[in-house]
Amino acid sequence: MPISKDFFALVAGAGAGTGRSIALRFAKLYPTVVLARRRESFEGIVNEIKAAGGTALGIVADVNDPAAVRAAFGAIKNEIPNSKLAAAVYNVNGGFAMKPFLDLKPEDLEASLDGTVRAGFTYAQHCLPLLLESVSDAPHPPSLIITGATASLKASANFASFAAGKFALRALSQSLAREFGPRGVHIAHVIIDGLIDTPRAREFVGKDQAMISPDSIAESYWYLHTQDLSAFTQELDLRPCSEKF
Amino acid sequence: MPISKDFFALVAGAGAGTGRSIALRFAKLYPTVVLARRRESFEGIVNEIKAAGGTALGIVADVNDPAAVRAAFGAIKNEIPNSKLAAAVYNVNGGFAMKPFLDLKPEDLEASLDGTVRAGFTYAQHCLPLLLESVSDAPHPPSLIITGATASLKASANFASFAAGKFALRALSQSLAREFGPRGVHIAHVIIDGLIDTPRAREFVGKDQAMISPDSIAESYWYLHTQDLSAFTQELDLRPCSEKF
Amino acid sequence: MPISKDFFALVAGAGAGTGRSIALRFAKLYPTVVLARRRESFEGIVNEIKAAGGTALGIVADVNDPAAVRAAFGAIKNEIPNSKLAAAVYNVNGGFAMKPFLDLKPEDLEASLDGTVRAGFTYAQHCLPLLLESVSDAPHPPSLIITGATASLKASANFASFAAGKFALRALSQSLAREFGPRGVHIAHVIIDGLIDTPRAREFVGKDQAMISPDSIAESYWYLHTQDLSAFTQELDLRPCSEKF
Amino acid sequence: MPISKDFFALVAGAGAGTGRSIALRFAKLYPTVVLARRRESFEGIVNEIKAAGGTALGIVADVNDPAAVRAAFGAIKNEIPNSKLAAAVYNVNGGFAMKPFLDLKPEDLEASLDGTVRAGFTYAQHCLPLLLESVSDAPHPPSLIITGATASLKASANFASFAAGKFALRALSQSLAREFGPRGVHIAHVIIDGLIDTPRAREFVGKDQAMISPDSIAESYWYLHTQDLSAFTQELDLRPCSEKF
Repeated sequence: MPISKDFFALVAGAGAGTGRSIALRFAKLYPTVVLARRRESFEGIVNEIKAAGGTALGIVADVNDPAAVRAAFGAIKNEIPNSKLAAAVYNVNGGFAMKPFLDLKPEDLEASLDGTVRAGFTYAQHCLPLLLESVSDAPHPPSLIITGATASLKASANFASFAAGKFALRALSQSLAREFGPRGVHIAHVIIDGLIDTPRAREFVGKDQAMISPDSIAESYWYLHTQDLSAFTQELDLRPCSEKF
Repeated sequence: MPISKDFFALVAGAGAGTGRSIALRFAKLYPTVVLARRRESFEGIVNEIKAAGGTALGIVADVNDPAAVRAAFGAIKNEIPNSKLAAAVYNVNGGFAMKPFLDLKPEDLEASLDGTVRAGFTYAQHCLPLLLESVSDAPHPPSLIITGATASLKASANFASFAAGKFALRALSQSLAREFGPRGVHIAHVIIDGLIDTPRAREFVGKDQAMISPDSIAESYWYLHTQDLSAFTQELDLRPCSEKF
Repeated sequence: MPISKDFFALVAGAGAGTGRSIALRFAKLYPTVVLARRRESFEGIVNEIKAAGGTALGIVADVNDPAAVRAAFGAIKNEIPNSKLAAAVYNVNGGFAMKPFLDLKPEDLEASLDGTVRAGFTYAQHCLPLLLESVSDAPHPPSLIITGATASLKASANFASFAAGKFALRALSQSLAREFGPRGVHIAHVIIDGLIDTPRAREFVGKDQAMISPDSIAESYWYLHTQDLSAFTQELDLRPCSEKF
Repeated sequence: MPISKDFFALVAGAGAGTGRSIALRFAKLYPTVVLARRRESFEGIVNEIKAAGGTALGIVADVNDPAAVRAAFGAIKNEIPNSKLAAAVYNVNGGFAMKPFLDLKPEDLEASLDGTVRAGFTYAQHCLPLLLESVSDAPHPPSLIITGATASLKASANFASFAAGKFALRALSQSLAREFGPRGVHIAHVIIDGLIDTPRAREFVGKDQAMISPDSIAESYWYLHTQDLSAFTQELDLRPCSEKF
């Protein structure tokens, strides 16, 4: 399929692992906009997409800053005024703290809520009006796909703040699915139940640890995006075949 | 059993319905401290407890204000310096908004997080050191019991902000159960799956609507508190027998 | 409270551990009928109840044999024709096999289904008409309380047949709760998430293993039975405070 | 991709709706064997596959009859002795009864267990040794994909027998996933949460009812089959965008 002239994809949280793979995958069909806090996070991705014959645009934006998100959507509107949003991915991590509860600071909780439900809320409020506008003519049902984790379903000891944010983001995704599904927008939540195979994580855990390939995650996001209106998935899990769960 | 001289109970969120019934129930064994934002919310409860031969102390504190919570725990220490915490109840509501997602404001989300996971976090950080001190000699395993709702498990359309807070609070309760259970403190989460029969709610829905009796909720909290170390319940649901679920 | 003259309790699966404790607990208020496959399983229980001033009746019946269950209910009718059923407990174990799936025989699956959903089905079909007759005047909402396990919620490797039965029994309990709750009968399911402290199990695992006290389980069943119509619990979990979950 | 010469797919429960679509989808890559109770159920499917340039084999077998299943696997071995099993689908329905519990017969429960967990058990015992043999060289991780329903997760009033079977089948799928995932075989369970758009169902509910397209279900099964070892999904849900859930 040739790259769409009328629709674009948007990926928030485009770092070295999942975000990059998702952006590359969606860029096979759509011009793709990537948001990241730092230019270095997306420059390589933008170049890779272009090298592969795609179209890409990187925008510096801290999704935890509502003004920055507003500015980013304004910039998108300016840069590609005639393109409509086909798919938005929210792949941002909340602040991670693995600590005994009595060692946690209120800032740890806020950092977790920031990158999960709070920024997710802001992002969804900007994306959904654009996705609704695309319902009538997009190649696939307009989609908002949200990255979750093991901690979205299970709050382990020493993960109180981290799980709080992930649970809350899952609530957001569920509620949006029930509200916007009937209007033709697909909201899906993906439980990444395992470590993601990024260079940094690989270095950390060693070469024998089973990890989830970011490209495989990206394929699952793409599959979710291509589901038709008759068969939406709200939630799926992904883990290495060898993972205990 | 005579009222304890050595241990007290603490109820945050002592309003007209559940909080009142819980305070009255726990006051049968423990001197009971009630926290509420406004004096009017607890005055009647304190009087009822005293009239029934119990001991009660009301403290004005907005649990959403960390400084006020700190001050409240300081006041407790001053007022009853030789009494140890046997049971703490967190029965606070987050801000409630039932609105289409695109009508929600960031303040709606914050208000929901405030009264749920954020104030719950502050409260738990104050209670848990005190509960740990009581493990060796309290009449029942020291307990922190947290009030949840239908929206703790299911995020319906138009409940995005409300459910986000409730999901997050549930995560907090789960993580704390896994961390503090092995140290002898019982953390339980109660899914209140229905309307609570308060005068105001009753007026609103009419006399034929099945509603949950606050006294019945209080019995369930008391039962949870009395569970021994060999058989802790982490979560239970409560609903009128006629409730669809 | 004096022992009821008008209502009785019924416990299926009255062995050395949980069944015994439940029977003793319910016998404080109700004359109690215990069913077990072998007379030796209930003789001691019947004697203990009588020694404590209660009333008890033991009936030999294999709940996996529908004719035997029918006969048992006939015998109850003959023995105590004027007594109505206040509470029924289903505390039977399905056949347990912990084996690699390819080593399981069809008989393993059948044995698991037998003692769980199949016998539970038979038992519930006999109990429910009697429980419905008691709705109008029983001291507490007539109850059917069903024993589940960790494997009711999670099917681990090598537990395929065992979990199949437990999942199915949980389905039965949920469906019955939704059908009979509105008619005033309380159906509850208890997830026993840990080992039960019976003499045999204790010998097996050693004295330091945290285990669930059968008496504590019995208290939880009693609590569930005493819940009023406004606040039914459908499911609760029980585990030692130190249990990982 | 040309049709595989070395591997085949197997679909149990190949009727007019989902089974047909799945068989057609898998037949794009694999020669496909379809099992059904009656020749009429698969004749059309076999012809369609052949007409599309694929290879298909229909075998009459009642999966509820272990001897018939054994015979069917023997027949497969005879017919295509050099072909290995790449993917097996279990898409069989248990007996369906929607009745008040006290109107159910033991046969209703057995009929539900038959087509779900009992036949699923038999089928899995035949498939898994073959799937294990394919791990080293199959084009995709050998897969066993199992069809579930709304009632796999929620047992509604009047669905006691139906849900019992579906819950049990879900337990089987979970346990197998945990046992065989680490050995390289992918076990997935699909929650079909809505009506499937077959001619008969369409006639029944009218043209405006949102229903799930069997072809969309088939795409999801194919996607699951193509997941690599680093990212297996154990469970996903499928429903029309407009479905309340």
